[in-house]
Amino acid sequence: MSLIVAKFGGTSVASPERIQMVAKRLIAKRQAGDQVVAVVSAMGKTTDELIGLAAAVNDNPPAREMDRLLSTGEQVSMTLLAMAIESKGYKAMSFTGRQAGIETDGMHAKAKIIKVHNERIMDALNRGYIPVVAGFQGIDPNGDMTTLGRGGSDTTAVAVAWGIGADVCEIYSDVDGVYTADPRVCPRAKKLDAISYDDMLELSAAGAGVLQMRAVEFARKWGVVIHSRSAFSDAEGTYIKEDPAMEEAVITGIAHDTSEVKITLRQVPDMTGVAAKLFSGLAADMVSVDMIIQNISEDGFTDISFTCPKADLDRARNTLERIVPELNAREYVVDTNIAKVSLVGTGMKSSPGVAALAFSTLGENNINILAISTSPIRLSVVVEQSQATEAVRCLHHAFGLDSDSIFEETQLSAEEIAAKMAKGR
Amino acid sequence: MSLIVAKFGGTSVASPERIQMVAKRLIAKRQAGDQVVAVVSAMGKTTDELIGLAAAVNDNPPAREMDRLLSTGEQVSMTLLAMAIESKGYKAMSFTGRQAGIETDGMHAKAKIIKVHNERIMDALNRGYIPVVAGFQGIDPNGDMTTLGRGGSDTTAVAVAWGIGADVCEIYSDVDGVYTADPRVCPRAKKLDAISYDDMLELSAAGAGVLQMRAVEFARKWGVVIHSRSAFSDAEGTYIKEDPAMEEAVITGIAHDTSEVKITLRQVPDMTGVAAKLFSGLAADMVSVDMIIQNISEDGFTDISFTCPKADLDRARNTLERIVPELNAREYVVDTNIAKVSLVGTGMKSSPGVAALAFSTLGENNINILAISTSPIRLSVVVEQSQATEAVRCLHHAFGLDSDSIFEETQLSAEEIAAKMAKGR
Repeated sequence: MSLIVAKFGGTSVASPERIQMVAKRLIAKRQAGDQVVAVVSAMGKTTDELIGLAAAVNDNPPAREMDRLLSTGEQVSMTLLAMAIESKGYKAMSFTGRQAGIETDGMHAKAKIIKVHNERIMDALNRGYIPVVAGFQGIDPNGDMTTLGRGGSDTTAVAVAWGIGADVCEIYSDVDGVYTADPRVCPRAKKLDAISYDDMLELSAAGAGVLQMRAVEFARKWGVVIHSRSAFSDAEGTYIKEDPAMEEAVITGIAHDTSEVKITLRQVPDMTGVAAKLFSGLAADMVSVDMIIQNISEDGFTDISFTCPKADLDRARNTLERIVPELNAREYVVDTNIAKVSLVGTGMKSSPGVAALAFSTLGENNINILAISTSPIRLSVVVEQSQATEAVRCLHHAFGLDSDSIFEETQLSAEEIAAKMAKGR
Repeated sequence: MSLIVAKFGGTSVASPERIQMVAKRLIAKRQAGDQVVAVVSAMGKTTDELIGLAAAVNDNPPAREMDRLLSTGEQVSMTLLAMAIESKGYKAMSFTGRQAGIETDGMHAKAKIIKVHNERIMDALNRGYIPVVAGFQGIDPNGDMTTLGRGGSDTTAVAVAWGIGADVCEIYSDVDGVYTADPRVCPRAKKLDAISYDDMLELSAAGAGVLQMRAVEFARKWGVVIHSRSAFSDAEGTYIKEDPAMEEAVITGIAHDTSEVKITLRQVPDMTGVAAKLFSGLAADMVSVDMIIQNISEDGFTDISFTCPKADLDRARNTLERIVPELNAREYVVDTNIAKVSLVGTGMKSSPGVAALAFSTLGENNINILAISTSPIRLSVVVEQSQATEAVRCLHHAFGLDSDSIFEETQLSAEEIAAKMAKGR
């Protein structure tokens, strides 16, 4: 008998029919002799609709009110799921963030969990109920509802799993696990049976959108085993845990990311404090800088490049229009046609040849490297967007990640693929 | 400076635009130097939509889950109203039933208020906020959300008014007060400046749908002055209070009700226990019996008539199919074509001639009386539905209630009139 937390995202509870499917799945676990606690997101597009209502009455709604408004989405899905379970003859009881004992700080819209009480959940389990917990929400010291920000429902699931000492925290979504690369880009990608927290965090940071980083960080910190699996099949997914006990590969997976732009400042006078001025200016204007590349100085001038999300480009332009003249740089150039391809693997630490093999592989395939950045367990290169698919495939092959079988497109509809690509919360 | 509770129903907060109007109205009170606390219902048809979602997953949803689900409707409207107030430069803060200190028993779907704490509301007022309270909901001893049932938001408003010692509890709706009769039926109806709790309760019980009886009962018990007024104009409405200090009329108003049916059991053997058996059977099947009329016995047989809501007719038929043979009655006859017309007035107690004047007035106008029932401050007659309008008008005239001016149809749209007729919660 296991104690399981099972988290279902917005797509999985988007309609009464899907909620019935989730109810069946939870009941199947009980019939198999396991104890289970469900955590749910809001139904489908509910959150967007609530945000729209708020925007109609206030351009800049107070965060306390916004949190309470958004938290109603999960209150709806949790009660409907509890009702669906009861309709099938099993006892269920829903719990808001407060009732589930999720205590947070008072930072509305991005609250941090400071304490998890497990009494009510454990009591419900002991009395034979399937507890259903609202994801994404908690209660602050004033007794006000807070929300946990992006990835909040995954974080709730991990926190509840920790709070009740669950054996595993299952996170159901429209992808069936973590792959060595995106199967839509690289048909020979393999699903991983397991992956370490560190590799998972690096893959997520490099663009693999399977799990929310914050939930993985929480799980790493508190030793919660995550099982990322499909809401639409019974197949095993991927376990994220401290010691995945997998074959020690140098590279665990390859992520790619086409959501960034590269900006280059040309002919910047190479003086002390230039980089500090540039990047503190960008930070002040809320531009999230990812990679930074500074070329070797020549004749007292240098080029400085950085990447940032496309979504931050307008703000970056504002900063640069002001700062470029101050720095006496010649100009800045924006390249929106790039992709970042990242090799991730804890095994990289003890394998000095990774960069050499990566660069030679890309060279043999006539793929030009526009920028490079590294961490102890990650190597990222920026390439032209048109060459990103080829870059992922040839690196995947070169590092021995290829599966024997070619990934066949699953039965996902166009709508479901679109949903896959849009990251839920 | 007054301390005012202002309650707005679902029609008044049905859209972002209407919520903005309510916000303006509350701010105007503040600008006039008054302190104000708002209480809101769920937006427009929200509650029906939530009930529909629940029905899609469970034919008989658990009451605890249903209460939590329905309570989200008021959480949405309260946050949007608080946001709208803030967008206009005033401070506002929303409060759920729990946060507003509305403690109830654990009877989900029809919880009774057992305690009202005023600390958070008073604190918010003292700090310059306009508190916005979710109607219809409270918290039970388990920390679970409860709902107060039909008329719940009006009851919340009265409870909050009592809790904070408000000078008046204003209940805004799409009618502009309490009239001597329904102006759509009786064009010479007058708006009352004030009415006693007792008369208001009798009028409501007799079919006048202005205020929920439960809220009036609560107000009477705790001495809260209610002001029933229009959400769409600034005109004064009607005060409901202990001593209305109005001109001592014999009759305060006339209500009519076309929502009942009359059922007659023919030729029932006139034996002990017959009525008990009939009406305990109807009660067991959840039929709300209103008037009961038993004719004089003749040859050992009698006819028994009663009225009940049309909505209970199917259940009543079930009961009667079983009980009529047991009673050895000949048959039962259903008359759906009836209306109940009621004269209400505390002054009736000391005016013995009311019944005589009523009956002779109806007779002179060729209106046949099908049944009669009385209380110390009410006289109700059942007439044919086609004669109801004429009955109201001639009684209104005979008892000196006619206004000098003829009621002109207001600028209400057809939709608004329909909304008037549908009772909100």
